[in-house]
Amino acid sequence: MSRTNVKKLLTSTELVGQDVLVKGWVRTKRGNKFVSFIAVNDGSTINNIQVVADAEKFPEESLKEVTTGACIAVTGKLVESQGKGQTVEIQAEKVEVLGTADVETYPLQKKGHSLEFLREIAHLRPRTNTFGAVLRMRHAMTFAVHKFFNDRGFFNVHTPIITGSDAEGAGQMFRVTTLDPINPPKTETGEVDYSQDFFGKNTNLTVSGQLEGEVAAMALGQIYTFGPTFRAENSNTSRHLAEFWMIEPEVAFNELTDNMDLAEEFLQYLVTYALENCADDLQFLNDMYDKELLNRLHFVVNNKFERVTYTDAVEILKNAKKAKFEYPVEWGTDLQSEHERYLVEKHFNKPVILINYPKDIKAFYMKLNDDGKTVRAMDVLFPGIGEIIGGSEREESYEKLMTRVKEMGIHEEQVWWYLELRKFGTAPHSGFGLGFERLMLFVTGMGNIRDVIPFPRFPKSAEF
Amino acid sequence: MSRTNVKKLLTSTELVGQDVLVKGWVRTKRGNKFVSFIAVNDGSTINNIQVVADAEKFPEESLKEVTTGACIAVTGKLVESQGKGQTVEIQAEKVEVLGTADVETYPLQKKGHSLEFLREIAHLRPRTNTFGAVLRMRHAMTFAVHKFFNDRGFFNVHTPIITGSDAEGAGQMFRVTTLDPINPPKTETGEVDYSQDFFGKNTNLTVSGQLEGEVAAMALGQIYTFGPTFRAENSNTSRHLAEFWMIEPEVAFNELTDNMDLAEEFLQYLVTYALENCADDLQFLNDMYDKELLNRLHFVVNNKFERVTYTDAVEILKNAKKAKFEYPVEWGTDLQSEHERYLVEKHFNKPVILINYPKDIKAFYMKLNDDGKTVRAMDVLFPGIGEIIGGSEREESYEKLMTRVKEMGIHEEQVWWYLELRKFGTAPHSGFGLGFERLMLFVTGMGNIRDVIPFPRFPKSAEF
Repeated sequence: MSRTNVKKLLTSTELVGQDVLVKGWVRTKRGNKFVSFIAVNDGSTINNIQVVADAEKFPEESLKEVTTGACIAVTGKLVESQGKGQTVEIQAEKVEVLGTADVETYPLQKKGHSLEFLREIAHLRPRTNTFGAVLRMRHAMTFAVHKFFNDRGFFNVHTPIITGSDAEGAGQMFRVTTLDPINPPKTETGEVDYSQDFFGKNTNLTVSGQLEGEVAAMALGQIYTFGPTFRAENSNTSRHLAEFWMIEPEVAFNELTDNMDLAEEFLQYLVTYALENCADDLQFLNDMYDKELLNRLHFVVNNKFERVTYTDAVEILKNAKKAKFEYPVEWGTDLQSEHERYLVEKHFNKPVILINYPKDIKAFYMKLNDDGKTVRAMDVLFPGIGEIIGGSEREESYEKLMTRVKEMGIHEEQVWWYLELRKFGTAPHSGFGLGFERLMLFVTGMGNIRDVIPFPRFPKSAEF
Repeated sequence: MSRTNVKKLLTSTELVGQDVLVKGWVRTKRGNKFVSFIAVNDGSTINNIQVVADAEKFPEESLKEVTTGACIAVTGKLVESQGKGQTVEIQAEKVEVLGTADVETYPLQKKGHSLEFLREIAHLRPRTNTFGAVLRMRHAMTFAVHKFFNDRGFFNVHTPIITGSDAEGAGQMFRVTTLDPINPPKTETGEVDYSQDFFGKNTNLTVSGQLEGEVAAMALGQIYTFGPTFRAENSNTSRHLAEFWMIEPEVAFNELTDNMDLAEEFLQYLVTYALENCADDLQFLNDMYDKELLNRLHFVVNNKFERVTYTDAVEILKNAKKAKFEYPVEWGTDLQSEHERYLVEKHFNKPVILINYPKDIKAFYMKLNDDGKTVRAMDVLFPGIGEIIGGSEREESYEKLMTRVKEMGIHEEQVWWYLELRKFGTAPHSGFGLGFERLMLFVTGMGNIRDVIPFPRFPKSAEF
């Protein structure tokens, strides 16, 4: 007999009355001297299938290895359940233990472990309800990203992870090397001789695929990246990871308004996809972690995003007499999360897209507005977390871009190829970046970014 | 008027007779004193739209900047074409040059550049027919991978890129560090003091996500990874990259036969998807690079894969009197590409799955057969390229796995978490790895792996 997964057992009414085989891990076993109830989960859904083992067929001794965490195979008839909490259950005919889990040493024996403790056993936490839900939703969001872009004729582009440029300037970088760590070869002037390194130069892990994404967009029209990016910053916070995934669409001929339209459609699509495809996992997370989670998801889907200039936003924040901000607001400074959340949650009561930021607080490649002071940047602000997307129209003028490159001390020799895009067949184009774990925080309601990625990487931690 | 992409213009008969706006890059301009014909491509398809500009409306002088590589916006009526080679064309009303491409310096001015030359301008090569076709197909295969697994209830898992273990032993690794490159901190014994490095230990770029993938499979049931992997080997060949993408499904409760079934279904699905969704690009690649390409794709779809033991395959190869192999075949040695291709192309005339390899030439985690000599490994062999997939049933017995760990000198302290999967609720499980660029070589017919990834990384090269 071939295996049926728990999700199918729970949802396929045509299976009722049939003999089935289920394999999975024991979540709980309880019962009395007449009967044992074994809750089995195989990861296909957050819900368990209840296995009913009559004591006549299964004396206590025969089930002694059926403990929490053990892996079992059960054959029996699927029947409508008499008890509460489930619609169907399996009347066991045969219970086979595939792998035991010692009651004394299995760490998930008892319920209610802290998220901190579970991080230390990242190899076992996917077996909990919480991390099962998060990881299933992580897949759903991954697939939704690809489906959204594929349905609209975008092409996924794999931009390089190892890079010879540090041009984006988005943060500290990790060095990638095969040189002797203790006695690296040196030049005559006593510097490390990177010409002898694997790639013949100093290389790092990428902080963004955008620059290479623009290359692809200026040939294929509309593209997106979805890959790992890195920051070597010593940030031990609930919002930062050293290794995280980014989605970066880039579209030739799109101007800032098109870019905002795309970002809004994209985010609403993803949240709608979660609501439609992850109902059970969302309900669990809403009940257990964040009673406002579902409300916040509906808030994003049901409201058109407000579009405001940075300058207007600064005025609003300055006039927000009732708000007590930790950081002052002045034109020219970057907004803090408290300011962003005030705009979204208090002032507009909608998701907000801020545009036209001061050029001095944004990257070199953003298109300069005619005022000479602001650039066509956009940040999308969400309830609870503040900025979820950052993007811009790109500077397509070679002369203007070169001025910015020189002003900001970008190494031309590292980005000659990027500059050439403006020499040969340049055109308006725009794009943005969505930090995938930021999205995951938003759709799961989890509070710590280390809990929305299977194996988090942060300062002093690269276990598993 | 909003822009219509070239693919839609060429395939939407309802647009004929309407005014349209197209934006894209000039591939060619030709004509006479009465009319100019401009071929425009926007990356949405390999085919160009022909723009017809009457000299009365567009005197030669007005089109002087419309040269190969320039970016233009054209408004006009879409009409049925009088000429050969296209069904529709645009009668231009307005031609705007968005970005020029200097005739003297634009590198793609003339046709027929070598693939070697195009590698040096990887920022412009996506604008050629060849690389447009390859990159569109790369997207199609990426999406097909996600769709295949999503449709079957698999969960995508993002395994870590930076790893503290080198357990897989699949090859040389790149070191990831933020230590001072010239004066790293040292321990009392004069070694590099990695406890002061970013992660508090020596870390590398992953060579495989399999071990972490097993963690996820033993909780979620069936998962797949799709991410970048790395080899720091000094291999300057047409088959090796330092950075490439891998797909690694892993399924709890699957045994070797299930694993073979999954691999065969997966590969046939991918090739069928390419045939159904990339017809124009495939036809171009078949015509220009490899006249046997379409035949080989049909060969894979139309033949059930032959399943043979390694031992039987060695016998076949030893008895292959007519074949002149460069390398001798002996039981216990790894097969070479020439042997694999002989089995596929000459002996069986089908794709082949070889199973039950000698344990000494396979990884520590593969399940030992009862003969004590062979393991439940499988390699899928394809025409033209040899091995395209490698996989196995995994050793689920803690004792047997520990024996292999000790025999092969694996560092237990790096893989304690992997070993614990066998302590707590172990079960049979299986998986395999598909090198994405190997697949891309197969479906595009390209000869060099550097030409099926946008920005290749190999010894002494990390440009762009």
